[in-house]
Amino acid sequence: MNPIQLFDAESSTFTYILCGPDSREAVIIDPVDHNLERDLAHIRRLGLTLAYVLETHAHADHVTSAGKLRELTGAKACVPSGCGIPPAEVQLNDGDVIRFGAGETISVLHTPGHTAGSMSYVWRGNVFTGDTLLIDGCGRTDFQSGSADALYDSVTNKLFALPEDTRMWPGHDYKGQSVSTIGWEKRHNARLANRSRDEFAQLMAALNLPRPKLIDVAVPANRNLGLSHGA
Amino acid sequence: MNPIQLFDAESSTFTYILCGPDSREAVIIDPVDHNLERDLAHIRRLGLTLAYVLETHAHADHVTSAGKLRELTGAKACVPSGCGIPPAEVQLNDGDVIRFGAGETISVLHTPGHTAGSMSYVWRGNVFTGDTLLIDGCGRTDFQSGSADALYDSVTNKLFALPEDTRMWPGHDYKGQSVSTIGWEKRHNARLANRSRDEFAQLMAALNLPRPKLIDVAVPANRNLGLSHGA
Repeated sequence: MNPIQLFDAESSTFTYILCGPDSREAVIIDPVDHNLERDLAHIRRLGLTLAYVLETHAHADHVTSAGKLRELTGAKACVPSGCGIPPAEVQLNDGDVIRFGAGETISVLHTPGHTAGSMSYVWRGNVFTGDTLLIDGCGRTDFQSGSADALYDSVTNKLFALPEDTRMWPGHDYKGQSVSTIGWEKRHNARLANRSRDEFAQLMAALNLPRPKLIDVAVPANRNLGLSHGA
Repeated sequence: MNPIQLFDAESSTFTYILCGPDSREAVIIDPVDHNLERDLAHIRRLGLTLAYVLETHAHADHVTSAGKLRELTGAKACVPSGCGIPPAEVQLNDGDVIRFGAGETISVLHTPGHTAGSMSYVWRGNVFTGDTLLIDGCGRTDFQSGSADALYDSVTNKLFALPEDTRMWPGHDYKGQSVSTIGWEKRHNARLANRSRDEFAQLMAALNLPRPKLIDVAVPANRNLGLSHGA
């Protein structure tokens, strides 16, 4: 059972729609503000009702449409408890289970490192890793209480402990890739496969990435589910 | 069960990878030449073996990688019998069934109109419509023995006769849309819903579209599975 994977070319962000075979009730992960109409059109065309909007973390590179989707569909917003997003109805912790549709379950894995609160979500042999683990890479660890040490633990102890054939769906991709597996990443990921904790920390410390252009707008907006202050 | 949908931003073409839950044997539909490495990487990362490469028609806007994929993976090429692609092992006719994996079946529907030979493929509640039916639109009918009359029949008599919740995956999209359903297209498709045969023929005759830039290169190449003459 694969999700429906939608791409935002502007921020290279993936949004996912999850729906089981026996119900029209669906969940959306990491929707982007300027794709609101596109995402609503997919929900309408597929005849779905939206139960939950999930965020993997408080994004620094784009603004979520979670607040607007919630208003327009009645879906509930589910966010990592450690991400500082108070307006969301559901504050998720490690080990929580989200239930929707006819017996569908999403298991919540706390995978800090890109941000302190980042979560990954496991559904039907798929894992949605947000910016923790990317295909052949990983998220940066130099802002929002990020930590190379924490990311190393999250990936090697939690994500790489999933079954090897688990399909891994990232929060972004910048090279035209769409999906991988835990087994492939464990053996081949350019940053994390066969690398010690110290080697990984040195590599991340040397990246010297520019500050995300949108961070000062996006993070405060995402902490309010993408709604402007007071909206 | 959804396919894995891959997008080519250059030609706005969708490529699909189909794989059932009980086998690693997969099928790819409409792969694009310059994405050969990307597509092979997906097959490797997912641990798949490729049984068949399917073409929906002889494309005029991009060149297939079917011939190269066949050489590199041992997959067999399956093409519509009416598209003039002699090097393919399997020449498909309406009503044929392609079998792969552990009991997976793809039903072949002859849906002429965009080209005389165009086929659609039905798998597990999904239909891959090539350029016959697009989301909220349809393929042009003014070259390669295209026919508005034939396309009208293909869509209204064959595709719209599928169950309404059949997920419809097009060969192209130019507006950021990814998937629809037969029920939605039957009720809302801008060109084909609630329109008579004559109204549709008049609309298609008035489009006055420019000639595809690549047609003189792409069609001969695609009739040789994307391999240059004699390769």
